[in-house]
Amino acid sequence: MTPQPNPQAGAAVKAADRAHVFHSWSAQELIDPLAVAGAEGSHFWDYDGNRYLDFSSGLVYTNIGYQHPKVVEAIQRQAARMTTFAPAFAVEARSEAARLIAERTPGDLDRIFFTNGGADAVEHALRMARLHTGRPKVLSAYRSYHGGTQQAVNVTGDPRRWASDSGNAGVVRFWAPFPYRSRFYAETEEQECARALEHLETTIAFEGPGTIAAIVLETVPGTAGIMVPPRGYLAGVREICDRHGIVLVLDEVMSGFGRTGEWFAADLFGVVPDLMTFAKGVNSGYVPLGGVAVSGRIAETFARRPYPGGLTYSGHPLACAAAVATINVMAEEGVVDHAADLGARVVGPRLRDLAGRHPSVGEVRGVGMFWALELVRNRETREPLVPYNATGEAAAPMAAFTAAAKERGLWPFVHMNRTHVVPPCNITEADLKEGLAALDAALTVADRYAE
Amino acid sequence: MTPQPNPQAGAAVKAADRAHVFHSWSAQELIDPLAVAGAEGSHFWDYDGNRYLDFSSGLVYTNIGYQHPKVVEAIQRQAARMTTFAPAFAVEARSEAARLIAERTPGDLDRIFFTNGGADAVEHALRMARLHTGRPKVLSAYRSYHGGTQQAVNVTGDPRRWASDSGNAGVVRFWAPFPYRSRFYAETEEQECARALEHLETTIAFEGPGTIAAIVLETVPGTAGIMVPPRGYLAGVREICDRHGIVLVLDEVMSGFGRTGEWFAADLFGVVPDLMTFAKGVNSGYVPLGGVAVSGRIAETFARRPYPGGLTYSGHPLACAAAVATINVMAEEGVVDHAADLGARVVGPRLRDLAGRHPSVGEVRGVGMFWALELVRNRETREPLVPYNATGEAAAPMAAFTAAAKERGLWPFVHMNRTHVVPPCNITEADLKEGLAALDAALTVADRYAE
Repeated sequence: MTPQPNPQAGAAVKAADRAHVFHSWSAQELIDPLAVAGAEGSHFWDYDGNRYLDFSSGLVYTNIGYQHPKVVEAIQRQAARMTTFAPAFAVEARSEAARLIAERTPGDLDRIFFTNGGADAVEHALRMARLHTGRPKVLSAYRSYHGGTQQAVNVTGDPRRWASDSGNAGVVRFWAPFPYRSRFYAETEEQECARALEHLETTIAFEGPGTIAAIVLETVPGTAGIMVPPRGYLAGVREICDRHGIVLVLDEVMSGFGRTGEWFAADLFGVVPDLMTFAKGVNSGYVPLGGVAVSGRIAETFARRPYPGGLTYSGHPLACAAAVATINVMAEEGVVDHAADLGARVVGPRLRDLAGRHPSVGEVRGVGMFWALELVRNRETREPLVPYNATGEAAAPMAAFTAAAKERGLWPFVHMNRTHVVPPCNITEADLKEGLAALDAALTVADRYAE
Repeated sequence: MTPQPNPQAGAAVKAADRAHVFHSWSAQELIDPLAVAGAEGSHFWDYDGNRYLDFSSGLVYTNIGYQHPKVVEAIQRQAARMTTFAPAFAVEARSEAARLIAERTPGDLDRIFFTNGGADAVEHALRMARLHTGRPKVLSAYRSYHGGTQQAVNVTGDPRRWASDSGNAGVVRFWAPFPYRSRFYAETEEQECARALEHLETTIAFEGPGTIAAIVLETVPGTAGIMVPPRGYLAGVREICDRHGIVLVLDEVMSGFGRTGEWFAADLFGVVPDLMTFAKGVNSGYVPLGGVAVSGRIAETFARRPYPGGLTYSGHPLACAAAVATINVMAEEGVVDHAADLGARVVGPRLRDLAGRHPSVGEVRGVGMFWALELVRNRETREPLVPYNATGEAAAPMAAFTAAAKERGLWPFVHMNRTHVVPPCNITEADLKEGLAALDAALTVADRYAE
């Protein structure tokens, strides 16, 4: 499976990368990208013969792992037939992808507007909400991420927004529930839920309900920390939206398509948004694709009045064919149930066991194949292992943990003071257990920084 | 080449489309998308056995036509090897695409930031410009299009902006040269050029040079009308930018990769921007891809300070492999020179001949495989055949022209009162002449509305 090492080829790939590739979210001269030779299932390998178990699913998007043979074959078949066609036409792959997605989205989210990824899905969802309501403002949560384009990053509630923050024009931020680091001085999850809803309701009252087009929330926030909302919260938000005529946008770019052990995280809570964004897992990123699932009510707004937005690659046939194959594979192979089962039976119990043994683990939370370990200096004070948004020397404890995991052949997902356990949703139980054992070992390094 | 008609299959594709696909820029119930069964080279066909010569290249992006066998094969090969990998790594297809693009971009535009399409390329280019200069404002031209996301559509200078116009925050619009409909009362092209530069210079003086981060221009505006700028204009803009420390962003999403008979339209004028956006032709849209070519000076700004932007599919391996194959095919087959040659030898002369014979043709302009016919009611007054941004009954003359072209097997590109001649850059001379003959016939229908 892992081919012979070929360091010379790797050096050439690396040299061209360093000369010509401008990388995302990076200081170009301070990075040292690993040259990757290949990937299959839950693993990838470099040109020196090192093989890694990918506990990050890339950027939490390869829900069916790398190079699933059926999806690769579907891409090859579609490439032979029709790689691309303009968005104004009806083409088979586009129709079929829309049908399969609409079949799985909750409630009446039956119309699919396709985009190239998650950021432009959020851009278009917010435009639809503003035009549907005729209202200017969007409410979004701190501790969130909604994408890298200007509008999407401006509703984002993490430091990735700061450099591009246009001064909150049209965006109001609020706090969503997070019992471990409560902004509401709550002592129980029930209290956190009730107070978070009261906080949202009060924010709306003081902003003016008639000025608010949409509330946008990641159903389960992803990179911001996998805070599964307390039972009742999203239903409460839904009720508030209904009462004030506010559009509820659930961002399922990361949480959708099996990640939480359901097709969509909204299914965990029985809540139906008015608009739902997706990307990543829809075709495991084999071909760039994202979109917005649109409810009947909002589709009606654009039934006889043009929706003023679009893009050349909307409903791209190759991307849609990859989505059709991915959804069919997930259904046939029971990937969603597999994620739910392994999450409940293996990941949850083993991570809680780690938490009992490692003083650096402050909290374990998650569902399905979507888990976070909050690493702390002190379990009583809950002081994070590294400060919020730390870089360089201040982030050294997390860098040491990361290096320790990689030495053990585990590629972890790391953000601020957290590591997330987000492997492919179809990871084997054996690989999963091997990865959790490597995580166990790497946490002993994090423990050195904890009291 | 064209398979047997299969109206039943077409009806199924159409039914699923109508039930589940939400289309770009459309009133969902007022459209009737043609179900397309296949495409090859410069042609496509529907399920009823109708075959069309595509004079629109999709949305002006299939520069090498549909289903080029070498690019299809490269996609299939890359799919078997590595469909996707996260952006923080060095991977061969990504490195090679960046190298091949950087080899062709003018001047020192040697670093490539990959996006999913043109809109997010513009979003990121403007962010780079604002952070590089520390200044807030962007100047953009009326009669332009820069993409469908919020920031990109807000610098757009056509009616597609209106519904999402956030009130010009940070965007100032100016008039670029357009001799046929001069805003400067110019009588010669030289005068138009000089006055357009003076207008830009004055706008900058009154806005405050120190407040302006960037001037963004399509090198040759595309959907807005293919107004090839007068010689000297872009050099003049470059000089103004240099004098005021303003970043020059040239948008080559539509004009790049052979469309004008050069690799980039900037090459027509010998001008090197600080940032250049691309998409479409980079891989003929076979897999969604766009990007920003970054100059040394701006890359330096983000050498030791992180660039605060990114996306999951940046430098997507499958998309990059399609770009590598497309660029190699274009080089091996001389596609760029072919476009220049046919444009100068066939399209230009024949369109000018049409203009002499059809009273509805007000002006012919263009270069390479990038031409516009301005249709008018009256050649003296230059009154457009349909009013600016007309819809419904008011747009009937253009609808009649379009229908006439389609009846003759020609799929035209139509926008407002113009038809553009923008076929694949590798169209055969025979197909091109056949299409121009069909255009000739269709223009007799437009003539009925002209005096």
